[in-house]
Amino acid sequence: MAKETNEGIKIKKEENFSEWYTQIVQKSELADYTAVSGCIAYRPDGYAIWENIQRIVDKELKQLGIKNVYFPLLIPENYLKKEAEHVKGFSPEVAWVTETGNSKLSERLAIRPTSETIMYPSYAKWIRSWRDLPMRYNQWNTVLRWEFKNPIPFIRGREFLWNEGHTVFASRKEAEKEMKDIINLWVNFSKEYMALPSLSGQKSEKEKFAGAEYSWSTEFILPNGKAVQGPDAHFDGTKFSKAFSIEFLNKDGKKQNPFQNTWAISTRQIGVMIAIHGDNNGLVIPPKIAPTQVVIIPILFDDSKLKVLKEAQSIKKKLESRGISVRLDDREEYTPGWKFNEWELKGIPLRIEIGPKDLQKKQVITVRRDNNKKEFIKSNTIEKSVVSCLEDIQDSLYKKALKQLKSKIVEVKNFKEAQLQLKNKGIIFAPWCASTECEENFKEKTGGAKSLNSPFKQPKLNHECFMCGKKAVSWFYFGKSY
Amino acid sequence: MAKETNEGIKIKKEENFSEWYTQIVQKSELADYTAVSGCIAYRPDGYAIWENIQRIVDKELKQLGIKNVYFPLLIPENYLKKEAEHVKGFSPEVAWVTETGNSKLSERLAIRPTSETIMYPSYAKWIRSWRDLPMRYNQWNTVLRWEFKNPIPFIRGREFLWNEGHTVFASRKEAEKEMKDIINLWVNFSKEYMALPSLSGQKSEKEKFAGAEYSWSTEFILPNGKAVQGPDAHFDGTKFSKAFSIEFLNKDGKKQNPFQNTWAISTRQIGVMIAIHGDNNGLVIPPKIAPTQVVIIPILFDDSKLKVLKEAQSIKKKLESRGISVRLDDREEYTPGWKFNEWELKGIPLRIEIGPKDLQKKQVITVRRDNNKKEFIKSNTIEKSVVSCLEDIQDSLYKKALKQLKSKIVEVKNFKEAQLQLKNKGIIFAPWCASTECEENFKEKTGGAKSLNSPFKQPKLNHECFMCGKKAVSWFYFGKSY
Repeated sequence: MAKETNEGIKIKKEENFSEWYTQIVQKSELADYTAVSGCIAYRPDGYAIWENIQRIVDKELKQLGIKNVYFPLLIPENYLKKEAEHVKGFSPEVAWVTETGNSKLSERLAIRPTSETIMYPSYAKWIRSWRDLPMRYNQWNTVLRWEFKNPIPFIRGREFLWNEGHTVFASRKEAEKEMKDIINLWVNFSKEYMALPSLSGQKSEKEKFAGAEYSWSTEFILPNGKAVQGPDAHFDGTKFSKAFSIEFLNKDGKKQNPFQNTWAISTRQIGVMIAIHGDNNGLVIPPKIAPTQVVIIPILFDDSKLKVLKEAQSIKKKLESRGISVRLDDREEYTPGWKFNEWELKGIPLRIEIGPKDLQKKQVITVRRDNNKKEFIKSNTIEKSVVSCLEDIQDSLYKKALKQLKSKIVEVKNFKEAQLQLKNKGIIFAPWCASTECEENFKEKTGGAKSLNSPFKQPKLNHECFMCGKKAVSWFYFGKSY
Repeated sequence: MAKETNEGIKIKKEENFSEWYTQIVQKSELADYTAVSGCIAYRPDGYAIWENIQRIVDKELKQLGIKNVYFPLLIPENYLKKEAEHVKGFSPEVAWVTETGNSKLSERLAIRPTSETIMYPSYAKWIRSWRDLPMRYNQWNTVLRWEFKNPIPFIRGREFLWNEGHTVFASRKEAEKEMKDIINLWVNFSKEYMALPSLSGQKSEKEKFAGAEYSWSTEFILPNGKAVQGPDAHFDGTKFSKAFSIEFLNKDGKKQNPFQNTWAISTRQIGVMIAIHGDNNGLVIPPKIAPTQVVIIPILFDDSKLKVLKEAQSIKKKLESRGISVRLDDREEYTPGWKFNEWELKGIPLRIEIGPKDLQKKQVITVRRDNNKKEFIKSNTIEKSVVSCLEDIQDSLYKKALKQLKSKIVEVKNFKEAQLQLKNKGIIFAPWCASTECEENFKEKTGGAKSLNSPFKQPKLNHECFMCGKKAVSWFYFGKSY
């Protein structure tokens, strides 16, 4: 038997969230640090979650009519500079290639922080007439943003994996219709698959994407009361099409700049999932995004080993025939107890135990990861029981997360209340004038809190700005954020 | 109707292969050049082929027990230098990041040309005991090799997409078993899906991977008689595990360096496919790798439009129910003739035409892309006919390519015959002493030809080396290559 021990999480989530988070990422073997600060190694269990996110989102994007492409990793400096606000937003974080082999380059090449400026010169070449529109392209790739803030695996890093959609339409109306489809996709994907409730709405002028006319975001609130911006969508209007001379002949035979959107989802969602669902025993992965949904652990004794293994394999097959992904952990170099800890730490939604006594009783034992509930299930109803149990876990995780989210938000009417709410590690919901000056003032006075977004569905508004007292134009969420 | 015209390929494959290739890549809209020399933009039709390659290969790798991971894009210079032969092989082609934002980095970071040197320090950390082995990881990513040869889209570029498998085993035997599984996967995938016959075998000492003990490759011969190295596999023995201090406690409790393999398939295969199957009318995509297998073109007249479209949609559904991917091109801004040219240029394996007269006769017209053969098919047998037709196209393409490959290879006994064969744009098969000195001599005297590989199945050998007259140790293929 194993002499090795598996080490659990040594700190409580409620006591030190940051340290708990760091431990869980490494001990559950989702990812590890590397020699390059801010760039992590995605281990198989972490990367498999990203593959699931990609698979599901990619399918939905294709159903919307979006096609995948791939553009170069490197962007010539003069391209990056073509849209003024855009370069201002990104250039402080760009990693520059200046040498190749033993030679200096005549022009620096940026590793893409985002790909507008390498894609749109090609768009300008490819788009000629209204017949070429809409052009709705997307790419899944890696990007670099050389931030100097403290990196946090998945949540904030210098390299991350994402998709970037870059779409072009003949009319503003079509582009804005897509904005709605995409933000709905992000909200529903987060909810249905990752059991993550979000705050969705429009970003402030100050916080919108560098180069956009307006930005929509999803925001997720972590247990420490800090917000994380999730997948987003930006309506760029004709800003980039003008900067990059993208033009098309419309049906009247006139030249026109088309309208553009960009949108993205990233590996950050994995971090949000860890932070919100994880507990003091480790990771908790929602069944609909879990690479392994069920682990079967046979209790092996010499005299009944073959029978038990046979039954375990038969259960595996039965469950797989219902589309459930199952791992049978029949390793003999580890004890069942070691395995229980291992798969708990790794967040597998449901554990099935089967030993010789269970075989006699024609039953198995199931243990839910989310609430540790143990049940005896008759072997002949196992597929149905497991399917419904996984659904219930998914549902419970979402409900719990939604309850937690709601508990973090407080409506405030003035800055004093806002300060108290920040002190209590909460999120502010307040009527706001939405001016950049007011936001900068708020940020300074709170030591870095900022607006998150303005929900699409607005409560009645007949208020003064909670901050400056002028007429409020919209309800907004505010908080500390990553 | 369209005033636009679609332009066909303006040059014959047999007259100017290079120019024909360049035109076909751009006009079929697989890819386009960008401002960064050697880095192409993959357009939707090109990227979709890569997605199919990835999907099929990834599934097969997972069935072999291999798991996906993701490691950082950037490699610290001191890591890249840890294995002497490896750094010697790659450093002339490395793109270096030296600045981020407005600061100079204290140590240069290489954009990965391949990931051994960023992955193996993590492997050293993660691998402790025999229980952790085998560790069979793979990543799909982009790599940069800043070559100064003339770039050719897909075939040779500074950035390309690939997978890189990096596996670790407790014993040489297990590692070498995997080498066989992988090379078989590459040969069979190329044959079955891409209809591409290959020469598979062991590379020479001079041509093996920088850092490997030995390398196996697949080689493809283009119509111009030049070879392209395709997917490969390298047995590294303990070279890297020693250089990176990867050690494990074996079952006897002793520390030991494990054995490693690396292997890859890249976007180059798309180039090989274009070059070998394409013809003077454009691209020809083998059905089993084609993103769109069938295009339906309805012949629309005002008085029968609705009926014809309805039938076309019904055919589409029927074919899709059999797993066939179908595009119904019902655009009214283009003529049927324009569409015929378009889809021919784009290499869709089978075209179905349907007009009002066909409706009356309860038939459709099918036109095969590979041989232009036209057939009238009864509507009620269409699924069966199309399935068997696609199979026949796949089969015919392979047979034609195999015949062409065989016609390019000539067995030679001495250097004079070898020279003649190179002059005739062919591949040499010859008994060889396999010494690096002899290979360098051959390369110099032929203006750059080199050994390709030594086939696993060797003919009887009782010869002198075709080049230096010493005792031959193996039959080898030689030729000019990309």
